[in-house]
Amino acid sequence: MSEASRPSYAAAGVDVDVAEALIARFAEAAKVARRPEVLADIGPFAGLFELGRKYRDPVLVASTDSVGTKVKLAALLGRHESVGHDLVNHCVNDILTTGAEPLFFLDYIGNCGLSDDAKVALVHGVAEACRDAGCALLGGETADMPGTYAEGDFDLVGAIIGVVERDSIIDGSRIEEGDVLVGLPSNGLHTNGYSLVRKIFKIGMGGNPDEERSVLQSHYPGLETTLADALLEPHRSYLNDVRPILDPVPGTQRSAPKGIAHITGGGIPGNVPRILPVGLGARIDRASWRVPAIFRLIQERGGIDEDEMYRAFNVGLGLVLAVARHDADALRAQLPDAWVCGEVTAGKGVEWAT
Amino acid sequence: MSEASRPSYAAAGVDVDVAEALIARFAEAAKVARRPEVLADIGPFAGLFELGRKYRDPVLVASTDSVGTKVKLAALLGRHESVGHDLVNHCVNDILTTGAEPLFFLDYIGNCGLSDDAKVALVHGVAEACRDAGCALLGGETADMPGTYAEGDFDLVGAIIGVVERDSIIDGSRIEEGDVLVGLPSNGLHTNGYSLVRKIFKIGMGGNPDEERSVLQSHYPGLETTLADALLEPHRSYLNDVRPILDPVPGTQRSAPKGIAHITGGGIPGNVPRILPVGLGARIDRASWRVPAIFRLIQERGGIDEDEMYRAFNVGLGLVLAVARHDADALRAQLPDAWVCGEVTAGKGVEWAT
Repeated sequence: MSEASRPSYAAAGVDVDVAEALIARFAEAAKVARRPEVLADIGPFAGLFELGRKYRDPVLVASTDSVGTKVKLAALLGRHESVGHDLVNHCVNDILTTGAEPLFFLDYIGNCGLSDDAKVALVHGVAEACRDAGCALLGGETADMPGTYAEGDFDLVGAIIGVVERDSIIDGSRIEEGDVLVGLPSNGLHTNGYSLVRKIFKIGMGGNPDEERSVLQSHYPGLETTLADALLEPHRSYLNDVRPILDPVPGTQRSAPKGIAHITGGGIPGNVPRILPVGLGARIDRASWRVPAIFRLIQERGGIDEDEMYRAFNVGLGLVLAVARHDADALRAQLPDAWVCGEVTAGKGVEWAT
Repeated sequence: MSEASRPSYAAAGVDVDVAEALIARFAEAAKVARRPEVLADIGPFAGLFELGRKYRDPVLVASTDSVGTKVKLAALLGRHESVGHDLVNHCVNDILTTGAEPLFFLDYIGNCGLSDDAKVALVHGVAEACRDAGCALLGGETADMPGTYAEGDFDLVGAIIGVVERDSIIDGSRIEEGDVLVGLPSNGLHTNGYSLVRKIFKIGMGGNPDEERSVLQSHYPGLETTLADALLEPHRSYLNDVRPILDPVPGTQRSAPKGIAHITGGGIPGNVPRILPVGLGARIDRASWRVPAIFRLIQERGGIDEDEMYRAFNVGLGLVLAVARHDADALRAQLPDAWVCGEVTAGKGVEWAT
């Protein structure tokens, strides 16, 4: 058998030497997201983060997630950085619901045939979002998996670890009937509903990529940006808004929120009840906010009924805070774009006030 | 538009209601992997693990990985539990290289069209391996991603968090010329080299699945099991072997290992040098162990040269411990299947003694 025709690991789609060069580029990209607790240059098989003894009774808070098929749009348009922000911000919000501060993040890219530049762009996006969250990018892995992923396709997965003091955990247990639900706006679909959107607009479904790009780059009535820009808007991080309200304000009586729901897959009905004690429900006033144009466009083009819209999408409501009625005004004073979107009721699940 | 023809999230391949039923099955499967530190039934968006104050100067050790295209074989044969063991054990070994004890694990399944039973089997495998490692399965996520994954395909990704006392970190920094390298055997390919193996045996490359299964279920000369059983043998966890040697033995002078290398992608030449200080290399005696039959078969069928074999596969050596020469005998007395496989040299990289 001649040298050229011999199978090698590189010919099978996994090139170990190239991978080593890439690791150096990833490490460079990750540099923006450092914290002093990271013990650098040791532990080649793992990342090390010194927790030390600065917490009284530390509880680690962890979550893992992916960006879902929003990655298909990124792949189609060659815009990889923004999905790194999606991934981190989604995870940051998930642990924020307990009151946790992010400590560090790990990312994973599974792919087939993604260019080195695209991989580095993904890690750049992850690292920038980690920096914005004050979180270290502690490690990551890239797996070239010919056959599992279609050529040019990838998945982006992350895990976040944060910390909260035991006596500061937000867990919804003190929520009572009559408490107020305060909403914070989403800035788009965040990371949910993309399989449905792709079906409606026939994007990334195996059709002609040029035609699909042309659909995405079009302007639609009511949208201020192209469809692509509206759909790829990165998941909003609520960390820097919510962190200041986790602690009492000196000179006031306002308490921390009793519960925080992140509106992800399942929408408002799927997520708000998750923080409520048994025997309580939520009444949400859908007239209390203006549905962003992107959701109206999706609903109209897809002929989707109202209930289905609110199960598949956040429809403009990204985070819901449960607070005592007497705290609502003080809370809203600290959160300029928040509004009262509903209240806690005796009952179960979500009912719509309008 | 009639009700039946309306797109819904379920019709687009993502069914939120089914997902909720599945989550209950995952939670049931995860029950075998609990620790008292897990704060159950709170934090619906994240997992909570109470670290408390039982460590003097805790350093968190983290790693993320996937099983690689070993998942293709599992999918083809409908054998999903074993890859959960692969995933956890790979991660456990990665953090063990620093001396860390596993605390908790997070898993992620990205897929298209995987059955609920297959998803639950994956989580079962993950949970069992977590239990064996004394590690909590703290959370997970399943993403149905039509279009990104081929029908019936999936990726399985995990993140592990462990802890080590700052003054007990194993980091290779004290390794000196003349130190002994002690090897522990692998029990198969572990999780590396599957893309090459699949190419050689034409498995999961888009051919006829029945023919591919028939290849896998065959017996080959020298193999005691079917090819499938040899290739799907789960990645060995070294935790329970190595944990006892991390602490000094009363009445002896033996120290903990100075460095531990996990032989993963890149093989011996790609991994042993990662733990060595600058200016040091490793001489490995390939005649010091018998290469398992599965590697001989792969080499012969693929016409792969020796160097390539040792870059793509562990070739029978799964973990390498660097120890002071005077500690080697005491170490081997505690590790019945360990052997001296080489030594630390002045130099760089790996040279072969034979």
